[in-house]
Amino acid sequence: MSAPMEILLSVDSAYLKHVRTLMCSLVVNNPGERFKVHLLHQSLAPGAIEALSADLGRIGCELSPLQVDSALFGSAPTSKRYPQEMYYRLLAPSILPKDCKRVLYLDPDTLVINPVGPLWNINLEDHLFAAAAHTLPTELLHEANKVRLGTEHRYYNSGVLLIDVAAARSQLDPRDVFGYVRERGNTLLLPDQDAFNALYGKRTLEIPDTVWNLDARMLGMHYARGMGEIDINWIMENTAILHFCGKEKPWHKRYHYRLGLLYKHYRNLTKTLMGKR
Amino acid sequence: MSAPMEILLSVDSAYLKHVRTLMCSLVVNNPGERFKVHLLHQSLAPGAIEALSADLGRIGCELSPLQVDSALFGSAPTSKRYPQEMYYRLLAPSILPKDCKRVLYLDPDTLVINPVGPLWNINLEDHLFAAAAHTLPTELLHEANKVRLGTEHRYYNSGVLLIDVAAARSQLDPRDVFGYVRERGNTLLLPDQDAFNALYGKRTLEIPDTVWNLDARMLGMHYARGMGEIDINWIMENTAILHFCGKEKPWHKRYHYRLGLLYKHYRNLTKTLMGKR
Repeated sequence: MSAPMEILLSVDSAYLKHVRTLMCSLVVNNPGERFKVHLLHQSLAPGAIEALSADLGRIGCELSPLQVDSALFGSAPTSKRYPQEMYYRLLAPSILPKDCKRVLYLDPDTLVINPVGPLWNINLEDHLFAAAAHTLPTELLHEANKVRLGTEHRYYNSGVLLIDVAAARSQLDPRDVFGYVRERGNTLLLPDQDAFNALYGKRTLEIPDTVWNLDARMLGMHYARGMGEIDINWIMENTAILHFCGKEKPWHKRYHYRLGLLYKHYRNLTKTLMGKR
Repeated sequence: MSAPMEILLSVDSAYLKHVRTLMCSLVVNNPGERFKVHLLHQSLAPGAIEALSADLGRIGCELSPLQVDSALFGSAPTSKRYPQEMYYRLLAPSILPKDCKRVLYLDPDTLVINPVGPLWNINLEDHLFAAAAHTLPTELLHEANKVRLGTEHRYYNSGVLLIDVAAARSQLDPRDVFGYVRERGNTLLLPDQDAFNALYGKRTLEIPDTVWNLDARMLGMHYARGMGEIDINWIMENTAILHFCGKEKPWHKRYHYRLGLLYKHYRNLTKTLMGKR
């Protein structure tokens, strides 16, 4: 039996319930794979973690929770939409256990609809991360972000990150993250993503967003232009990870983008596979 | 371990490839259940049956093929869209093996998106069948069909049928089916369905179409009126079987009804679970 794929999640209590749906979609679409889930958090209730552990156990996944000392961030700005937990993906190399060599970080508003093996096994060469830059809305935004953050590369979305934990553990200093967030937090538009780009963008391998981190709004009317050959048929066959970016979320009753239908189905299938909560 | 649910399918070579997707959707949405598939056919190639048997074996389903003597129907009218195989569901009681007590017949253009256990275990009382009458387009059509076929009940859709094989075996005469199809075939609008309603409608328990046989076009613009509380959220949580009725099929690239997205996803997931063909 092969070693499990290691998944990295980081949620607060508001987003915890969506982990079930994400993991259900990952397991259904990756038959024959095993998964170990590292859950970084600040203050989840022990009972909530135990319940999730039991639920994930029903689909054969092992949960490994890790509490992060929130004092390390000092007065870094957070909000309901941007809790401290969003920074934890950047700390993974320094706080994950030593036997963890590589993890795939996934935002809790992603959904897996095809095998992720090709990303898990990607050759990172001398990069420490792999991430996608969202194609849309426009290239103009990428240029603006380069100026704003002083970067040379395209602006990466930090919702899906493959991390070479073993290499990053020895090459990166976690104090960079604490310091950047404390000092620059107030000036950041999307704090986690800006920090990722500013600190680690240079060490990142770009992967196609249409396969590994598709903005689920892209099938909406005015986004669809300029997508070329990428239509619903292409997406169903080729896209592995959908990302439900933006304020509207597919677990809201009135979410209206087309791909939300798949999320709603997996959310319901989760109840069949793990029981209701 | 509980006894398997027994599924009845009947396809010609053109529809055979869609059985994989249907069975994949059934297995994924019914964890912990086992399935035995009775496949009634006229002239499928042995190689095609063996390939399907191997594919279904990969998701834990047993295939039991049964060839029907096509001479029994004489000169009954058929076409590419309405092949002789569509009548075979009506013969199931007389040709399925004696140890088969109950089967769930499914059209090859259906998709399962929730557990079917509650239908499989339904109390049929003294009925021989359970079937749904499609709510839409209008009740007017039901009245027209009553006059046309000389029936008293609503017009049932024969795409999803629960059949009490044990009781029907002793109470129905298969010659009724052969005779009806030979004599009336040319005057029937939807031959399989008309024959089912005329011959067996009186012995049928009505079940809700919104749960057990939802016309997938119902989410289209002009069908959606009059559906009351039934929206996309209700359907994802409550509907167990989608039926992609009509000439347009969700395996066509340009199929445009919303629920076709789920079909396309399961069609692709089938390749992941069973391999490409």
